Amino acid sequence: MTLNSYTQLLDRMREIGWIDGAAGLLSWDQETYMPAAAIEFRAAQLAYFKGRTHRLFTADEVGGWIKECESAAFSSLSKEAVNVREWRRAYDRATKLSPELVEEFERSTSMAWSAWIAARKGNDFAVFKPHLAKLLDLSRQMAEAWGYAKLPYDALLDGYEPGARTDELQKVFAELKPGIVRLIEKIGPSARSASKSTLPGPFPIEAQKLFNQAVAERIGFDFTSGRIDIAAHPFCTGIGPSDCRLTTRYDDNDFTDSLYSVLHECGHGLYDQGLPKEDFGTPMGSAVSLGIHESQSRLWENHVGRSREFWNYWLPVAQKHFPTLATNTAEDLYRHVNQVRPSLIRVEADEVTYDLHIILRFELEQKLLHRELSVEDLPEAWNTTFKRLFGLEVPDDTRGCLQDIHWSHGSFGYFPTYTLGNLNASQLIQNVRNENPNLNAELAQGDYGSLLRSLRHKIHQHGHRYLPPELMKEATGESTQGRYHAAYLERKFGS
Amino acid sequence: MTLNSYTQLLDRMREIGWIDGAAGLLSWDQETYMPAAAIEFRAAQLAYFKGRTHRLFTADEVGGWIKECESAAFSSLSKEAVNVREWRRAYDRATKLSPELVEEFERSTSMAWSAWIAARKGNDFAVFKPHLAKLLDLSRQMAEAWGYAKLPYDALLDGYEPGARTDELQKVFAELKPGIVRLIEKIGPSARSASKSTLPGPFPIEAQKLFNQAVAERIGFDFTSGRIDIAAHPFCTGIGPSDCRLTTRYDDNDFTDSLYSVLHECGHGLYDQGLPKEDFGTPMGSAVSLGIHESQSRLWENHVGRSREFWNYWLPVAQKHFPTLATNTAEDLYRHVNQVRPSLIRVEADEVTYDLHIILRFELEQKLLHRELSVEDLPEAWNTTFKRLFGLEVPDDTRGCLQDIHWSHGSFGYFPTYTLGNLNASQLIQNVRNENPNLNAELAQGDYGSLLRSLRHKIHQHGHRYLPPELMKEATGESTQGRYHAAYLERKFGS
Repeated sequence: MTLNSYTQLLDRMREIGWIDGAAGLLSWDQETYMPAAAIEFRAAQLAYFKGRTHRLFTADEVGGWIKECESAAFSSLSKEAVNVREWRRAYDRATKLSPELVEEFERSTSMAWSAWIAARKGNDFAVFKPHLAKLLDLSRQMAEAWGYAKLPYDALLDGYEPGARTDELQKVFAELKPGIVRLIEKIGPSARSASKSTLPGPFPIEAQKLFNQAVAERIGFDFTSGRIDIAAHPFCTGIGPSDCRLTTRYDDNDFTDSLYSVLHECGHGLYDQGLPKEDFGTPMGSAVSLGIHESQSRLWENHVGRSREFWNYWLPVAQKHFPTLATNTAEDLYRHVNQVRPSLIRVEADEVTYDLHIILRFELEQKLLHRELSVEDLPEAWNTTFKRLFGLEVPDDTRGCLQDIHWSHGSFGYFPTYTLGNLNASQLIQNVRNENPNLNAELAQGDYGSLLRSLRHKIHQHGHRYLPPELMKEATGESTQGRYHAAYLERKFGS
Repeated sequence: MTLNSYTQLLDRMREIGWIDGAAGLLSWDQETYMPAAAIEFRAAQLAYFKGRTHRLFTADEVGGWIKECESAAFSSLSKEAVNVREWRRAYDRATKLSPELVEEFERSTSMAWSAWIAARKGNDFAVFKPHLAKLLDLSRQMAEAWGYAKLPYDALLDGYEPGARTDELQKVFAELKPGIVRLIEKIGPSARSASKSTLPGPFPIEAQKLFNQAVAERIGFDFTSGRIDIAAHPFCTGIGPSDCRLTTRYDDNDFTDSLYSVLHECGHGLYDQGLPKEDFGTPMGSAVSLGIHESQSRLWENHVGRSREFWNYWLPVAQKHFPTLATNTAEDLYRHVNQVRPSLIRVEADEVTYDLHIILRFELEQKLLHRELSVEDLPEAWNTTFKRLFGLEVPDDTRGCLQDIHWSHGSFGYFPTYTLGNLNASQLIQNVRNENPNLNAELAQGDYGSLLRSLRHKIHQHGHRYLPPELMKEATGESTQGRYHAAYLERKFGS
């Protein structure tokens, strides 16, 4: 009976996986190749598939199967036990909300997103304000419906980072923040006035494609199970057990823009390609959280890609693809891709200042959700805090509290996963380095095999087996800490 | 009640349309961009969607809704009447077969296809023989289940060309055949020994893309609702009401290969883009038959594209894209793309010999189905007939009766739609010419607007309103005839 329930769950998830994969391709196509006029049909089609998988997953019989499986004696941390545990978590999150609340949230985010577009364009926070208030109110209701340990914010966080707790994040972020503020005080004044360095181009797009492909192949991205296309915003999407698609965009004045977005997305892609294929469509075959996913992208982008070892190896190859670099040194490239400059916009931030952008948002969205800050007062709170942290005046809300899309989607609790990604990346690579003192020498030779094998072993193969804090403990001996990343930044940028 | 049934049918068809569109994109992607290792999941996914739409369409309630609609007084040839008529046709074709027969056919075609690949590769008809016999046997059973006017072949034909009748096709093909045989007797002997003309290349693929795009845009293909990509086999697929995708392939030694496949697929695409968008997913918004579809592709490929008017206009443009053509004349290009040469392979055939390849298959597959020819004797019958018609010895079955994929799919009755396409194309353009004596002058100026408007008016806008024979009658005053195409070939190639 129980085995039968488990099989029925697997069958249902297989069906959902087929539909989700098709929806994934429809979305990928929408960003890459879809003719413009096809958008209306595509939107209706995607909404249909989303509703269909939701109904398939939240059906009463699914709840019954999960319940029967829970009374079975699957051995702890077995594939079956993990899947049942995670199906329960997802089923509860999907069914604890009333259909009315879900519908109101969908409707409200859709309107909030349009209002955000207009507010941002017109630099008019007032246009977005009532929508933000509405989404916060609905999010509070959702948090209550889901339940939480201490704070409503915990319930939202859990949707992006299962097992994460607000108070623990505050603690690890507190380990990080003072060091960054110190670095900014030290570097900031001169960096703010220095002009951005440039490389001698132009860099033809075809040459950039070939160079990116060479790098991606070398670090281990499998092109028989994946590809790289062009899109306005770089992303990585897995649409089948052997089908992982990355996108990037090209700037002919600076080939490193596309290179680092490829390295970042490849980091996500390597995780995707390292998940157990036979478990596709089940928790065991899926990435465990955003904070772990982002650790993989940041590790390859920053720890590998923005290192001296990287350019010592890749400069001659780059010079073959881009003859205008003939007189540049590896040190030129290293410096070019590691410029620090406090700036207004998160997505343009360097390694040092990036997490401060996140901490600002993490603090403000908690206050908003917990009614310690009114929506009315958000712009002023943003600007004051920004000035204090970055030493910069925020000239308008478009470049201030209106800059990111996340809140317009009602995504509160998402931002901290970016910094978790940075912390996890630093902690993971430090651990790999401790185990393999030869790592830097390998990287300097363009040999990424042992690093990838370590990540496969420590992270990728496990899918959802452990919640993120336990996964980090299994992988490195401790749950996520702030000090490894703080030390990394100090080492790299302190002098 | 009846209006309600009609609305429920529309809702069901909308749902099927969303799924079919997704399956269309999955198939398109499989031929264009999909990473190789993704094939296994993709195949399972496509099979799931196929089964899902089949179940959604053949459900009992659908039969009930159709029946209720049939008792309504929808006015003759109204959108509703046409949709109900065609849903009935499709529902009966889908439900008159027992599930066992459908499954056996699916299984058998899948095995037959693998056997055909092997047989063709090893030039060993015996490997394919039992599968062909099996598929013929199942096709006979299917024909009996569907029912037919005179001959079992009628029932199969009807699946590709609704309303077509074997005896009528025989009559129109008989009008065509003697003229072609005469032309081959006249041209053949010298053509068989002449060497194929070549153009001064190479022709860089990027330049070919730009030239093809210029031609496609000029004849009216709407790139905001469509695109052209690369695939091993050119095809056209409509995956949404404003999303039509063509493919082609490039040969740097001859840009006309990709050009004529683009013109051909554009002909299909213009039909697709001219169907009523608001009726997408219903018969009124769908192409009526293969023979009408092929008439559109052949008309643009051959009547427009392989004319002197075409090259008089396009030569200077081609010379800008391909400077190596600097000393060529429009007449050089015209001759290059109109070489006649009896040859063994259908897909490489010129305009004169193409239909003879089809007539051969049409005659043999009827005999096979009606047990007038045994599978055992097929190779000899093929080779003897081929020698008589083309004056060529068939050196092996791979280049003989094993060359086409169709029979391995169990597609009997498909081949004649190719020739129907040629006949319809000649009849349609003759009719347009009669109405517009200025047509040639327009085409010589690269002005395709009035021709496209005529086709939109005569064919595209009607969707499934008329069955093909009536559609041709509405459009040209007569159902499909053989003599227009015979006269066209004689005029163009007789001297």
